[in-house]
Amino acid sequence: MKPYCQWSKEELLKLKEELDARYQEAKAKGLHLDMSRGKPSAEQLDLSMGMMDVLHSGVDLKDSEGVDCRNYGVLDGVKEAKQLLGEMSEVSPDNMIIYGNSSLNVMYDTVARAMTHGIMGHTPWCRLDKVKFLCPVPGYDRHFAITEYFGIEMIPVPMTPQGPDMDMVEELVSSDPAVKGIWCVPKYSNPQGITYSDETVHRFARLKPAAEDFRIFWDNAYSVHHLYDDDQDFLLEILDECEKAGNPDLVYKFCSTSKISFPGSGVACIATSFNNLKDIKKQLTIQTIGHDKVNQLRHVRFFKNIDGIHAHMRKHAAIMRPKFEAVLDTLEQGLGGLGIGSWIRPKGGYFISFDSLEGCAKAIVAKCREAGVILTGAGATYPYGKDPRDSNIRLAPSFPTREELQMAADLFVLCVKLVSVEKLLEEK
Amino acid sequence: MKPYCQWSKEELLKLKEELDARYQEAKAKGLHLDMSRGKPSAEQLDLSMGMMDVLHSGVDLKDSEGVDCRNYGVLDGVKEAKQLLGEMSEVSPDNMIIYGNSSLNVMYDTVARAMTHGIMGHTPWCRLDKVKFLCPVPGYDRHFAITEYFGIEMIPVPMTPQGPDMDMVEELVSSDPAVKGIWCVPKYSNPQGITYSDETVHRFARLKPAAEDFRIFWDNAYSVHHLYDDDQDFLLEILDECEKAGNPDLVYKFCSTSKISFPGSGVACIATSFNNLKDIKKQLTIQTIGHDKVNQLRHVRFFKNIDGIHAHMRKHAAIMRPKFEAVLDTLEQGLGGLGIGSWIRPKGGYFISFDSLEGCAKAIVAKCREAGVILTGAGATYPYGKDPRDSNIRLAPSFPTREELQMAADLFVLCVKLVSVEKLLEEK
Repeated sequence: MKPYCQWSKEELLKLKEELDARYQEAKAKGLHLDMSRGKPSAEQLDLSMGMMDVLHSGVDLKDSEGVDCRNYGVLDGVKEAKQLLGEMSEVSPDNMIIYGNSSLNVMYDTVARAMTHGIMGHTPWCRLDKVKFLCPVPGYDRHFAITEYFGIEMIPVPMTPQGPDMDMVEELVSSDPAVKGIWCVPKYSNPQGITYSDETVHRFARLKPAAEDFRIFWDNAYSVHHLYDDDQDFLLEILDECEKAGNPDLVYKFCSTSKISFPGSGVACIATSFNNLKDIKKQLTIQTIGHDKVNQLRHVRFFKNIDGIHAHMRKHAAIMRPKFEAVLDTLEQGLGGLGIGSWIRPKGGYFISFDSLEGCAKAIVAKCREAGVILTGAGATYPYGKDPRDSNIRLAPSFPTREELQMAADLFVLCVKLVSVEKLLEEK
Repeated sequence: MKPYCQWSKEELLKLKEELDARYQEAKAKGLHLDMSRGKPSAEQLDLSMGMMDVLHSGVDLKDSEGVDCRNYGVLDGVKEAKQLLGEMSEVSPDNMIIYGNSSLNVMYDTVARAMTHGIMGHTPWCRLDKVKFLCPVPGYDRHFAITEYFGIEMIPVPMTPQGPDMDMVEELVSSDPAVKGIWCVPKYSNPQGITYSDETVHRFARLKPAAEDFRIFWDNAYSVHHLYDDDQDFLLEILDECEKAGNPDLVYKFCSTSKISFPGSGVACIATSFNNLKDIKKQLTIQTIGHDKVNQLRHVRFFKNIDGIHAHMRKHAAIMRPKFEAVLDTLEQGLGGLGIGSWIRPKGGYFISFDSLEGCAKAIVAKCREAGVILTGAGATYPYGKDPRDSNIRLAPSFPTREELQMAADLFVLCVKLVSVEKLLEEK
């Protein structure tokens, strides 16, 4: 089929009539579907139900060092939890702090601490006239919400298939001492599913920031979240690269089991240099006596080691893969060759990123909503919710069932067509 | 026996010789005992082991509203957790937010939020020249650590048997707009075990603060932590009193199950007015997607309701009571009538507060440590760790076994005598 831009006005008008009719039919179905958030499905959660059985009243709740995990104490996490999450993060257990249930909370606290107390003795950010963060776009709305909440100016940096535009990152980081951080989802990025190339990681590790308290916020949320057994992305380990580049304190690496075990009842962590750990613990010891060690133990007893995590993630993949493929195939079959949208086929993570014709994303999301399918708000993938091209839409295929997902994807394709045709007609 | 102050120099010298000899004997025993922190004993933790059995893979993890507690969502806590902790806090579930495992963390975050974003639209505290907190003394070291960490000036307010000196509180709160808060442990206070009288609570509720963003930080840590079934303290409900007094937004009330179920693996909450809740949620929604709902459910399924909590607390009391009595009896028998120390007999909570002769607390704690018994550092119960009279010592009888505790109490009495005699001899 030829691209819509080559269609005559008459052809487009006729098509619009057809699409309108199909849209009315779709609306009449009264769908209630949600593709808005990266939320695991009930089927995926069932995979971790065994975690509810590993601890019971007949089991010893001491860790390998004899610590009674039921009581107060142990600020930075039980030894075997550091080991497990260290293996998953590809860093030494000694570089880890194990937190509570939410890596988002850890990131928030990390920014909050820098605001009120500064990083490793540097001026607290709240005392500076201007603090800026670089935000690779499209990116994760909850990252942007944190920096926005703290009044940090966000500078969008375009993503490329290899990661953020590193020329721009290097230029901004090395020239502007107000630039204090960058948000990164380096593997199976949210929303595009892009994994940073070796060169990108090398260039991150070799940054020469104008600000000594510049930090990379490396949210490795999808480190083991592959869709395929035989076709996986690989990401260089950033702490190691920073160390080698003589920049050991450059990175805070975040990670959690939220999309491995139970979101909301998982275990989060930070991996970073000894200097950063020392700096963080000065604050952490004021904030809490310790995080939930029983839940740390529960995770260790269930997964045992990194092999256990990989085996578990293959079960997740078996559920996720057909969903991703259903959406991707529907996009391909419905929109392929029409020149009204583009997307990336990710090998892992939780999202499919779709780019519509310029100026169409909001209208597409609204049309879908009107017919009962909730998508992530258009613009959400940009700082301040402002996508300058009004083009990017994040699709989250995990939560609905296969059947629901097919209906949602069909409706999405229909809405993309309809809005695009209307847009093209306007321009005729 | 007559008070030491009436003893002659010769009598004291002879006594000192005796006490020295006994101290050397005690040291030779090589004790390793810890009475420093309010940490439940293993026996107490065993009481909650049933909590490890209520959730298992055969059990539905949906809450009463059908929410799958294994997944993301529900910022402010599952309905039945609000109900349970609401009953325990004596407030409506609608006034609650359920958090993670630590009420200390909630208090920290509450201060941190006020620092960076202010309270209900008022100027963020970090932008003010001076922020002050009132600190009833003796009080809880971890409270003081939070305000010290944020550079908040702490003003000690003496405790009376009815609670903080309310004349002083009223004067400072109503005259100085830099006074933004007060730390309170209103029931079975840390460390004295004092419960605020009805009049004290009334006067708190009727405060007319110079600062509109003044808040009472009401840490109701020991609300159900009685030692006796038939002789309990009662505390007026502060939110209700504030509402009646036309001061609905005056209080943040904190609470947790840390010393009910497992410390570190419990559930914490805040109870406050709708205006405050709205203000808090604006921040909370940036900080996290939600707290551990599975653990909330676990607590509800185990305790069921407030009667379940009370029944459970009676089991705690059965373990705690003889320990408190052992220490109190040892103090009475060893020090009664000697005029070298005073203490309060608490009806609940986790501590016994001891006041030595002026200038003796540090030396007593050091002597105990030298002989293998760790007490809370002298001064810890005062802001900046500075007890101006060097007199207050907090004893925490919960963690050691009965036998250990008896040895520790005996040693403590011996050290009090020894240091007091040395002090009195200096003055002769």
